[in-house]
Amino acid sequence: VEQGVEELLTRGVAEIIVLDEFKQMLASGKPLRLKMGFDPSAPDIHLGHVVGLRKLRQLQALGHTVVLIVADWTAQIGDPSGQSATRRMLSREEVLANAETYLQQFFKIVDKARTEIRWQSEWYGKFGLEDVIRLSSKFTVAQFLAREDFAKRFAAGSPIAITELLYPLLQAYDSVAIEADVEFGGTDQKFNILVGRELQRIVGQPPQQVFLVPILVGTDGVQKMSKSLGNYIGITEPPEEMYGKVMSLADAVMLDYFWLLTDVSQLEIDQMRLQLDAGEVNPRDVKMRLAFEIVSQFHGHQAAEAAAEEFRRVFQRRELPTEIPTVVVDREKYAGKPVPIWDLLLTAGLVKSGMEARRMVSQGAVSVDSARVTEQEPFVEVVPGMVIRVGKRRFARLEFER
Amino acid sequence: VEQGVEELLTRGVAEIIVLDEFKQMLASGKPLRLKMGFDPSAPDIHLGHVVGLRKLRQLQALGHTVVLIVADWTAQIGDPSGQSATRRMLSREEVLANAETYLQQFFKIVDKARTEIRWQSEWYGKFGLEDVIRLSSKFTVAQFLAREDFAKRFAAGSPIAITELLYPLLQAYDSVAIEADVEFGGTDQKFNILVGRELQRIVGQPPQQVFLVPILVGTDGVQKMSKSLGNYIGITEPPEEMYGKVMSLADAVMLDYFWLLTDVSQLEIDQMRLQLDAGEVNPRDVKMRLAFEIVSQFHGHQAAEAAAEEFRRVFQRRELPTEIPTVVVDREKYAGKPVPIWDLLLTAGLVKSGMEARRMVSQGAVSVDSARVTEQEPFVEVVPGMVIRVGKRRFARLEFER
Repeated sequence: VEQGVEELLTRGVAEIIVLDEFKQMLASGKPLRLKMGFDPSAPDIHLGHVVGLRKLRQLQALGHTVVLIVADWTAQIGDPSGQSATRRMLSREEVLANAETYLQQFFKIVDKARTEIRWQSEWYGKFGLEDVIRLSSKFTVAQFLAREDFAKRFAAGSPIAITELLYPLLQAYDSVAIEADVEFGGTDQKFNILVGRELQRIVGQPPQQVFLVPILVGTDGVQKMSKSLGNYIGITEPPEEMYGKVMSLADAVMLDYFWLLTDVSQLEIDQMRLQLDAGEVNPRDVKMRLAFEIVSQFHGHQAAEAAAEEFRRVFQRRELPTEIPTVVVDREKYAGKPVPIWDLLLTAGLVKSGMEARRMVSQGAVSVDSARVTEQEPFVEVVPGMVIRVGKRRFARLEFER
Repeated sequence: VEQGVEELLTRGVAEIIVLDEFKQMLASGKPLRLKMGFDPSAPDIHLGHVVGLRKLRQLQALGHTVVLIVADWTAQIGDPSGQSATRRMLSREEVLANAETYLQQFFKIVDKARTEIRWQSEWYGKFGLEDVIRLSSKFTVAQFLAREDFAKRFAAGSPIAITELLYPLLQAYDSVAIEADVEFGGTDQKFNILVGRELQRIVGQPPQQVFLVPILVGTDGVQKMSKSLGNYIGITEPPEEMYGKVMSLADAVMLDYFWLLTDVSQLEIDQMRLQLDAGEVNPRDVKMRLAFEIVSQFHGHQAAEAAAEEFRRVFQRRELPTEIPTVVVDREKYAGKPVPIWDLLLTAGLVKSGMEARRMVSQGAVSVDSARVTEQEPFVEVVPGMVIRVGKRRFARLEFER
């Protein structure tokens, strides 16, 4: 258990504030209220969210309760990109539909039996101007403009609606409303979650702990995973698509994915790293292991197996075969001058007749070193090692005799 | 009438935005709604407020309506000194009592029959978070921090509560709620009133005109008149006190007071200026005219006459008489050495006996050149021209013989 708790507090964790206090809480045996917010304007869960949700599930396994906040009020304000100061208000029906979508996905990871669902409407539906005045008197403009993204926008002269300063206040008040013991979020939520901690202190509640998970890099290996950047893997995507997207992942980040998104042990991950560094293993094979692990979490082993099989089939069809037959051609005849492609196709045995050769060219099915050859420009010059291809499956590598 | 309107738009006016639009409004003959706010945490009216209230009365005389807003909500926030982020909430009873006090004073200047009284509670009592979000989305943090006092405090690192940004928003919304045509205020209200104008434009109302009056300098002749600085003249102060406070006014600003607070004509004021510059008139006499004009506005002619009489009496009692008897003393005996005060008092004939002299000193009734002489330090050195005083009425100026 000691070992387990140690891993719980380090693996997939960016920062815990205050770590010692949080350890004492866990040791006390008291069931904790783990606050997690959900923005109903973005109901789909992708792997970037899964990093934190896995931590929730691990803590639930120790007897703690997840309190999921349906942020139907703060979703209207928007935070923090500030492209539009306020978003369109979602209708009650849209919020309900999105919440249903989200919860279906959420409970693929989080234990439903140990989850309490709370709507901001419970407290913000009757929130009056007097409450807003009282709440907003607790913090200063300078404190909030110190938040990194606000500071940058303010310095750059980009507009920050006054409403946006309300966002951290309302998120903070959520913690008071549900008496949160711990709030979870990505590292970009540090400021907002600390405001919640401070507000609880001000109103006389025990201040919540801040549990920050790393921001997952998207499939491009560079940017934060996000739906709007198109570099995401949604947890409801079909097995083959999910598998294929993992396979498109930049090699550099695949071990981070093992660390943040799978149960593969630290020891195994370390071994993979050594093997990759030494060139003893094909990165593609490591990534197929990763794809299998991730797909099986959301779709089960059988679907993951099928996705792997499908991937192999498609992969082998699309890529150049590892074995391309070499055809030796007469240097006298071909070196240093353009020759018609039909001549080469016949010589290499890729077509059975000049007729077939012309037909394949006119269909656009003939390429030289991946560049299509056309009827308008049928002449090519032979270069040793050049690959000629006809259709999807016929290849020949041309060489001159030694 | 032309002449009257011209004076209305210039005398006691700092700025009108937009002057041409406002002139057109006046010319249209449509009754205008003149917005004026009142902070029920500060119910007493002093001459600083009177500058604007006189303009309201002048416009009422042309048929326009004053809409007085009892700012029972914004009073809770406080603006803009920022010493305390939010003030204590006034109880309903306190607000009512203060409103009563204020209105009694207000209607000494403004025509009650052409005044509509509105309470912010009408619209803010049911103002919800959704309304706050909608309102605060219309303006940016940078726009508000550009307000001079905010900019200074922000630059100096002084705290600005987020609540304080709500203040201009709520004041602006008041204009929308009452459909103001013109809002009145001191020049320090320019920013807030312009926010109201802008908000009306945003919500599709005709934007209000901004009518700014000068800030009245207090009796010290330097600082803005304000209760907290103690340099104010309240309009409910008794006639004698009011008269005396006007007489304590710095000479340099007394003509401004004529201009801003009396009906004395421009021509007369110009004449006074010429006479004062030429030394043809005693500033004290000009100020007595001012005191009379002001006191009679709030207490009537008779009370003003009585106050003037009382002032003359007290003034002559308190000041050094213009004729102080000179007593020539023996240079041999007194020059260049300390002598006991009783000796001087007897010599000057200010007391009848050494006993009386000692008694007056022990009572603290004896002074030399306005410095009290004590039993502990009874020795003084005679300097030619030195004035010895016993009690309120006995004086002697000491000189050596020529």
